Amino acid sequence: MGKSRTAPSQIDLITRYREVRALSEALAAPLSDADATVQSMADASPAKWHLAHASWFFETFVLRDHVPGYTPFDARYTFLFNSYYEAEGPRHARPMRGMLTRPSLKDVRAYRAHVDKALVTALPMLKPEVQALVLLGLNHEQQHQELMLTDIQHLLSLNPLEPALFDAPNALPAPIPGPLHWIEGRQGLVEVGDDGKGDFAFDCEGPRHKAVLHPHALAHRLITNGEWIDFIEDGGYARTSHWLSDGWAWVQAEGIEAPLYWKRNEQGWTRYGLDGRKPVNRAAPVTHISLYEADAYAHWAGFRLPTEAEWESAALNIAPTSGNQLDGAACPRARAAEGGSVLTQMFGDVWEWTGSAYRPHPGFRAAEGAVGEYNGKFMSGQFVLKGGSCATPRGHVRASYRNFFYPHQRWQFTGLRLAKDL
Amino acid sequence: MGKSRTAPSQIDLITRYREVRALSEALAAPLSDADATVQSMADASPAKWHLAHASWFFETFVLRDHVPGYTPFDARYTFLFNSYYEAEGPRHARPMRGMLTRPSLKDVRAYRAHVDKALVTALPMLKPEVQALVLLGLNHEQQHQELMLTDIQHLLSLNPLEPALFDAPNALPAPIPGPLHWIEGRQGLVEVGDDGKGDFAFDCEGPRHKAVLHPHALAHRLITNGEWIDFIEDGGYARTSHWLSDGWAWVQAEGIEAPLYWKRNEQGWTRYGLDGRKPVNRAAPVTHISLYEADAYAHWAGFRLPTEAEWESAALNIAPTSGNQLDGAACPRARAAEGGSVLTQMFGDVWEWTGSAYRPHPGFRAAEGAVGEYNGKFMSGQFVLKGGSCATPRGHVRASYRNFFYPHQRWQFTGLRLAKDL
Amino acid sequence: MGKSRTAPSQIDLITRYREVRALSEALAAPLSDADATVQSMADASPAKWHLAHASWFFETFVLRDHVPGYTPFDARYTFLFNSYYEAEGPRHARPMRGMLTRPSLKDVRAYRAHVDKALVTALPMLKPEVQALVLLGLNHEQQHQELMLTDIQHLLSLNPLEPALFDAPNALPAPIPGPLHWIEGRQGLVEVGDDGKGDFAFDCEGPRHKAVLHPHALAHRLITNGEWIDFIEDGGYARTSHWLSDGWAWVQAEGIEAPLYWKRNEQGWTRYGLDGRKPVNRAAPVTHISLYEADAYAHWAGFRLPTEAEWESAALNIAPTSGNQLDGAACPRARAAEGGSVLTQMFGDVWEWTGSAYRPHPGFRAAEGAVGEYNGKFMSGQFVLKGGSCATPRGHVRASYRNFFYPHQRWQFTGLRLAKDL
Amino acid sequence: MGKSRTAPSQIDLITRYREVRALSEALAAPLSDADATVQSMADASPAKWHLAHASWFFETFVLRDHVPGYTPFDARYTFLFNSYYEAEGPRHARPMRGMLTRPSLKDVRAYRAHVDKALVTALPMLKPEVQALVLLGLNHEQQHQELMLTDIQHLLSLNPLEPALFDAPNALPAPIPGPLHWIEGRQGLVEVGDDGKGDFAFDCEGPRHKAVLHPHALAHRLITNGEWIDFIEDGGYARTSHWLSDGWAWVQAEGIEAPLYWKRNEQGWTRYGLDGRKPVNRAAPVTHISLYEADAYAHWAGFRLPTEAEWESAALNIAPTSGNQLDGAACPRARAAEGGSVLTQMFGDVWEWTGSAYRPHPGFRAAEGAVGEYNGKFMSGQFVLKGGSCATPRGHVRASYRNFFYPHQRWQFTGLRLAKDL
Ligand SMILES: [Fe+3]
Ligand SMILES: [Fe+3]
Ligand SMILES: [Fe+3]
Ligand SMILES: [Fe+3]
Repeated sequence: MGKSRTAPSQIDLITRYREVRALSEALAAPLSDADATVQSMADASPAKWHLAHASWFFETFVLRDHVPGYTPFDARYTFLFNSYYEAEGPRHARPMRGMLTRPSLKDVRAYRAHVDKALVTALPMLKPEVQALVLLGLNHEQQHQELMLTDIQHLLSLNPLEPALFDAPNALPAPIPGPLHWIEGRQGLVEVGDDGKGDFAFDCEGPRHKAVLHPHALAHRLITNGEWIDFIEDGGYARTSHWLSDGWAWVQAEGIEAPLYWKRNEQGWTRYGLDGRKPVNRAAPVTHISLYEADAYAHWAGFRLPTEAEWESAALNIAPTSGNQLDGAACPRARAAEGGSVLTQMFGDVWEWTGSAYRPHPGFRAAEGAVGEYNGKFMSGQFVLKGGSCATPRGHVRASYRNFFYPHQRWQFTGLRLAKDL
Repeated sequence: MGKSRTAPSQIDLITRYREVRALSEALAAPLSDADATVQSMADASPAKWHLAHASWFFETFVLRDHVPGYTPFDARYTFLFNSYYEAEGPRHARPMRGMLTRPSLKDVRAYRAHVDKALVTALPMLKPEVQALVLLGLNHEQQHQELMLTDIQHLLSLNPLEPALFDAPNALPAPIPGPLHWIEGRQGLVEVGDDGKGDFAFDCEGPRHKAVLHPHALAHRLITNGEWIDFIEDGGYARTSHWLSDGWAWVQAEGIEAPLYWKRNEQGWTRYGLDGRKPVNRAAPVTHISLYEADAYAHWAGFRLPTEAEWESAALNIAPTSGNQLDGAACPRARAAEGGSVLTQMFGDVWEWTGSAYRPHPGFRAAEGAVGEYNGKFMSGQFVLKGGSCATPRGHVRASYRNFFYPHQRWQFTGLRLAKDL
Repeated sequence: MGKSRTAPSQIDLITRYREVRALSEALAAPLSDADATVQSMADASPAKWHLAHASWFFETFVLRDHVPGYTPFDARYTFLFNSYYEAEGPRHARPMRGMLTRPSLKDVRAYRAHVDKALVTALPMLKPEVQALVLLGLNHEQQHQELMLTDIQHLLSLNPLEPALFDAPNALPAPIPGPLHWIEGRQGLVEVGDDGKGDFAFDCEGPRHKAVLHPHALAHRLITNGEWIDFIEDGGYARTSHWLSDGWAWVQAEGIEAPLYWKRNEQGWTRYGLDGRKPVNRAAPVTHISLYEADAYAHWAGFRLPTEAEWESAALNIAPTSGNQLDGAACPRARAAEGGSVLTQMFGDVWEWTGSAYRPHPGFRAAEGAVGEYNGKFMSGQFVLKGGSCATPRGHVRASYRNFFYPHQRWQFTGLRLAKDL
Repeated sequence: MGKSRTAPSQIDLITRYREVRALSEALAAPLSDADATVQSMADASPAKWHLAHASWFFETFVLRDHVPGYTPFDARYTFLFNSYYEAEGPRHARPMRGMLTRPSLKDVRAYRAHVDKALVTALPMLKPEVQALVLLGLNHEQQHQELMLTDIQHLLSLNPLEPALFDAPNALPAPIPGPLHWIEGRQGLVEVGDDGKGDFAFDCEGPRHKAVLHPHALAHRLITNGEWIDFIEDGGYARTSHWLSDGWAWVQAEGIEAPLYWKRNEQGWTRYGLDGRKPVNRAAPVTHISLYEADAYAHWAGFRLPTEAEWESAALNIAPTSGNQLDGAACPRARAAEGGSVLTQMFGDVWEWTGSAYRPHPGFRAAEGAVGEYNGKFMSGQFVLKGGSCATPRGHVRASYRNFFYPHQRWQFTGLRLAKDL
């Protein structure tokens, strides 16, 4: 579960509640009932499901448990919209979420309004530890906002019509970033992990703990699409020696030849995004790559991925609200890297694969009860990603934030920054 | 392809065109955009897809090929809504039909209206052989009407809310049918297969040919749910000796214990239908059973399934428009079997599994060209079913009609009538 | 089960028993313990398993049931070597037969000797109906002899060393057969199926029954490798219009481009056989093709496959012991077709795919009890093959004999003869 | 690749070569040709393959590359017996290793003798860096000795006869170990990883590097079968809250209820081993458990798994040649834990799952060339195990040694030791 150390002021919490909830609605606004219903793969969920599930979280852990007299909108929704909380009883099978043509998107919006009304009314009377659950629920909903966007993109990408959901402004052509510069990192003992001083952090971000950093440097910017095309053209996807063994098996089995959503035509590479199919912008950070691809690129380039501690230590002095996040113009943004003497693009644009497995920080204990299922049980087989993306709501991410995916997954806005030993 | 031997009168064809097209719309009327979009399994298609594909057939084989100046509604729809006509070029992969959240149901209705307008305008000028294609298209659309209903039922059955699409009238309790009577069939040489005298038949129904019938009798009525419960309670699903080897493997692998859509609760067996979940009616014909189940039941009962020729020969004197078909009240209908001296329930209610593999009649040759892909290429691994069901549009079925499904499939309204050697 | 209508004379039965059993040993003689142990696919069984299972049949249905005081060789073998007789209790899972490194081939030979000794001793005292079971067991063992050979060939084909088990004599180059001639078949009512007059037939071969033949002709010889290469070179495997729908799916999924065991090198096509890898002989009948391939070839050539009744009726006057069978020189044999005025190659060389599904003959009833599981339960999804092959023991096959395989299977010596409507 | 820092003296290397090679032969001595040929699952290899592959390593990287005039035993073996060295060209597919009934076990022994003769002759003339390759080859062969044993055990376990390969001496009943004691570990900065001072280490063991240890303690002994039965009886396998999410999915999909090779009968739990099926010894360490099971046990017990650095730091002062290793009496050994003031059972008995993902140590770079494929490419998705087992050749393991398997794998002798935070 998340931890909120001080009771957020009530006004702030209500304001924040309204803002977060409204953003979900805004993101879903261009969707039809059908768009919001279909599940494109087992890893993804329908938009309607995200909208309802985020409400189920408030209804279950706040309204049901702490607001006497609350009447559930529909008692059957618990079965439908629980995600994976085993302690909350049986639930609709994950790969069958796309079968739920009923309730409709309109019904789900009514469900959200019902929960909103009850919650906003009850908020001022809630005890601080319950307000902390509301704050957790808001952070949870923000996570689902990002997933909802990437899931919709995946769904629409499977439609031969390749519809555009949004118009993207016609960006001025961005200059191709210059060569990588290397920014030396701290060495020796550092402190990383959630320090318990912010308003909120997920349980897996802590505890604060010491880590050793060996002499190393990080690239001052992300790897671009242009650099990725160099990798492709140099046979990067065809030469087994660059690849982890599992990665090579994945490349062979799936016939992988480029990042997700890329296609080659006579003019060159194009990519699909929520603004439709467009030419690949060589100046923008590469995205929709798996850990296997990121690792193979790093091997090909003669470098490696950063460790989580290296990345986190380097990010401690950078404002986590900086960078190109969900309210930004393009996803991700093509941008000339500044001078090269400082780290850029650390927050926003793309989640950066680290070379660190997603395992507990020293001293980590999962919370008891249903909300304790939040993070700890996913700690096998996945890798940590840092820094948020252009689909992460601004204010949601921070240096200690740990995102995690399996090494083959790439429908999130995932990218890479190189590191090297000194 | 189908064959229409005499040019149907123009007035009739326009009327018939309007009626068939209107029935599709009526059947889809209770569906939301989401209901009409989702594909519940690879065997099924979204309702929207059925509606569009039936129009694509007219647009392609009639309007495009024979109506100069016709402007396609949307050139991209050819790729989306071709089913399996290899000669018509590449097409959207069948298991991905459910990803098409766009075009919307509303768009598809506009597509239908566009085709209707063009076709009704052109009809009077079409040459007889093109009018025959229109008649084929109408029969094709009727097939898709039945599939659309059974596909929707399958989809909604996967929703834990088990929504009812229609209200079924509360039938008077039907008396349990009495014991089976046996109606002796013709012996020796008979003629079966399409005789070329009706307005229309699919290519696979002919040619007319001689067949030998050995001494046999058919049960005067269908097997009921009550009799099926006897089979279950006698361990029918647990005793391997009743089953075809492939059937037993299917029972074991899928954990089959009852017809599709059945569940047992404290009060007994219930079944899901488009009118929601209801108690199983012991008087009604059993339905949603596979060939494997039908065959195992017959073995358990000491009898066998009819051959196609036995069934067809017996049906030659029965009006194919009789029985409980798509315009009937309940699906299938519980009905006391009359006296027992004549065959009843031959048309309508449920498709009757025969013991005959779906192979070409002697002398069959598939038509050339794209419409020739219609039936011949499916002639391996499937069994013939006869007689139509409560979801078959009245007027669509006849004695020579050959429906065909794989022996494990059971989401259609499939049932059985026993036969025996004399 | 099989039926032997007259008690075979004891002397003959003992002689025949010894001969059949000795042939199994002779066929297995070149095998190492390892060769005889490995299972190359779920459809195949280890040679050791065939040798033991054929003995288990005698031990179970003859010695255990009818010879008081018989002591089983090893009580645990029942579990290991029962094939699919559900009535005989649980058994080792079929796909795990290749895990049985113990008992060794030597142990299995000792098991066979133990059974032989007991059976030869008991034979003179056995009642006629039990002697009939012995005859059934011998026919059963002959079936396994053919399977053993084809299973070994499949196994060794997966070894990159492509070992030769036998030396094949260097045949004189055979002249390429001339064009196909068509031999008109009987028309109207014919009698086919086992007539109960021979010493033995399997249950599924009967009963004798009437069938109608429509005007047709059969090709006077089998299709050759040379003709098959023409099919390949004309794009036969690449043009969907020739294929059954299931067949095309199989071709695509498995990447099929030629008969099993064929490879192309610079000199042309080669094939693997128990005599190693050799050039494809254009004069020899094509073999190791699936029903899908046979049907596609027939479609490409403008003809069709014979029905079972057509083939059987034509074969009634041909000696079933003729042709190139298991004791012949090459498998299959390249042979100039004689004149063209008579049917040739009907027995032996290759099993001929028919267009008939393997379903019961009219009036068929499976025998009661365990041996009744013999054939009836396989009557779905398979096609009938007729005439035996170069791996069928001479004396085993006859006109009414029904072999059956799934339409994708092709590791048997399967080939085709064309038919056409007149 | 491995590193040998000082050229081992020639006498020693020859002696060691002879000893290691002889041990492989001795371990394989009880196997039949069939035992040595069959592959029981994709994760395992046939014994014959292990024996040949270990020789291929010497033949390829030493004899072919560094001994002029060496004549390969059989040029085709390179294709058959390369494991995964992509740089060495194409090779027989791993899941098809069990199809190689030829060459025979006898042939493989001749291959080994051929390589031995050439290598022992050449050894004195080899340059130090080539002698280092020989030492690498010996360590490589030792790894395959352990795999060969566990692979044989897996194969024989699938035989319903459950054959015993060895007789195990009837051990005196061992007293049940007393309660766990906790041994506090070092805190703060420690040095772990290969220090480059031993004769040999695999590349992934280094470089030596600093790690931070947080306050913790390790259990003084391994978890026993008796304690594991307590876990089972307390519903350990049925309660999802103890399990990693991937682990719970594995438990459900595979129906896991106990360690591999365990079965319950009326007398209680039994386990299969190379000495046959025997009652589970409550005093012995539990083995054949997956990381998922080890982690679930630790969660159930209220503790956690050690990290690799915690384990390695604690093992630095313990002789790696101590404990019950491959030359010991039983596998693993039931043994009363001594007093409790020191760590016991650290080396030998069972590989201890750590909570550390198998990722590169800081500063790790894989060697160039084919031998560089040795370890680095497996660094995703696996966990580190430490300490060796009762099937590890004595002298092969050390504190820095990193074994690695996927979290679901358990056919090795895998077990667990608990750790806790202080
Ligand atoms: Fe969630
Ligand atoms: Fe259609
Ligand atoms: Fe058999
Ligand atoms: Fe190896």
